[in-house]
Amino acid sequence: MRQRFKPWAKEKLAEHAQIAVADPAALKGKWHEFFGNHHPIHIEVGTGKGQFITGMGTVNQDVNYIGMEIYDSIIVTALDRIIEAELPNVKIIRENAQKLTEFFEEGEVDRVYLNFSDPWPKKKHEKRRLTHESFLSIFEHILVDEGEIHFKTDNQGLFEYSLHSMSKYGMTLNQVWLDLHASDYEGNIMTEYEEKFSAKGFRIYRTEAQFKKR
Amino acid sequence: MRQRFKPWAKEKLAEHAQIAVADPAALKGKWHEFFGNHHPIHIEVGTGKGQFITGMGTVNQDVNYIGMEIYDSIIVTALDRIIEAELPNVKIIRENAQKLTEFFEEGEVDRVYLNFSDPWPKKKHEKRRLTHESFLSIFEHILVDEGEIHFKTDNQGLFEYSLHSMSKYGMTLNQVWLDLHASDYEGNIMTEYEEKFSAKGFRIYRTEAQFKKR
Repeated sequence: MRQRFKPWAKEKLAEHAQIAVADPAALKGKWHEFFGNHHPIHIEVGTGKGQFITGMGTVNQDVNYIGMEIYDSIIVTALDRIIEAELPNVKIIRENAQKLTEFFEEGEVDRVYLNFSDPWPKKKHEKRRLTHESFLSIFEHILVDEGEIHFKTDNQGLFEYSLHSMSKYGMTLNQVWLDLHASDYEGNIMTEYEEKFSAKGFRIYRTEAQFKKR
Repeated sequence: MRQRFKPWAKEKLAEHAQIAVADPAALKGKWHEFFGNHHPIHIEVGTGKGQFITGMGTVNQDVNYIGMEIYDSIIVTALDRIIEAELPNVKIIRENAQKLTEFFEEGEVDRVYLNFSDPWPKKKHEKRRLTHESFLSIFEHILVDEGEIHFKTDNQGLFEYSLHSMSKYGMTLNQVWLDLHASDYEGNIMTEYEEKFSAKGFRIYRTEAQFKKR
C-alpha cells in the first residue's frame, strides 16, 4: 500500500488512545473488559486504511473488531474512519502479527481476518506470508478452540500457497470461493484494494478455514 | 461425454480381455502378477476415451495404468488407442468406482487420477461426486499408505467443493494450481475434454492431495 510520510500521524494516534490502543500487551486477557461487553472479538491482520474493519463494525455492532497495521501513516486513516463512523466496537493496534501472543490470551480471539495480505512471492520470503505455518500457529494459539481464519486475496500464487499451507497444518477448508464477486456470497465488505483490483477484472479468492479441535 | 450406440463395443471388449479386463475381481491382490512386474499401479477413474491414460502410459512405461470407465461405447475408443500404441502397461476396466474395493486389495494402488469428473452440480447429487467423502474413503482403502489423488477439472464449483471435501477428510493439499495451463507445471498430459475446453479459454484447476498416515 502506498505510504506517504505523515510526521503528525504518531501524535494523532497517541491522542486517540481509546481507539488506537497504545499498549495492547496491558490488555492481554482483558479485552472483553476493555470493550465493556462479551461480544466476540474478531481481528484483522493488516488492516490498512480500515475500510473493511469500519464496514464490518458498522454492519455487525455486536462484534468487537481490532485491526492491526504496522504503518503509522496508513493506520491513521483507519483511525479517521473509526472516529467519523463513531464505532465503539472498532479498535486498532499499530503492531505486527508476530506479537499477537503478547497481546491476546490463549482463546481470547474468535476469528482472524486476512485480507489481501502481502504475497511475498519469492520462495525465500515464504516465512513472511501470513499463511505460513509459523503465523498459523500464532493464530491458532490466540483463537478459540476450532477457530476460523477468513482469508481473501486477488493473488493467485498466495492463494494456491495458502490452501496448501492451511491444509498441511491440519485446517479444514470449510468453504472456498474461486471467484468471490461472481458467486452468491452475500454481505461481502470490500477493502479499498479489493475495490480497485476487482474493478480491473482480477478474481477475488476467498476461504474460510478452521483449526482442528485442540 | 457424448455417447453413440455401438452394439459391437461389448463384443470387441470381450475379444481383447488381456487389455479390457473382464473379471477384475479375480485379479484382486494379484495385479502385479498380472502386469508381470512390480511397477507402481496408477488408476484413472473415469478414463473416457483414454487419451490421458495412453499418453501417460507412453511417457511412463515403468508405471502400470488402469483406466475405469462405465460406458462400453466410450471405453472401446480407449481400447483402440491402447492396441494402436501397443502398451502392455495400460489396461482398462468397464466398471464404476464404487466397486474398487472388490477389485483391489488394501494398499494395492499407488495413485488415483480423477480428470474432469462429472461435477454433479446439484446439492442433492453431492454424493455422486468422486471427491465426496464416500469415494475418498474407497480411494484411501485401495491406496498405499499416504497415497495421493491427482485431480484436475475445469469446473469451478466442483473444484471448490473438492478442496473443501478433501481437506475435511483430513487430506493434505500438497499443491494447488488455479490456472494449470498458465503455470510452469511440466509434463501435463491433456484429456480430450481438456484440449477442447482449455482452447475455449476455460481455466484448468488441479490439485495433488494426499491421505494422512494410517
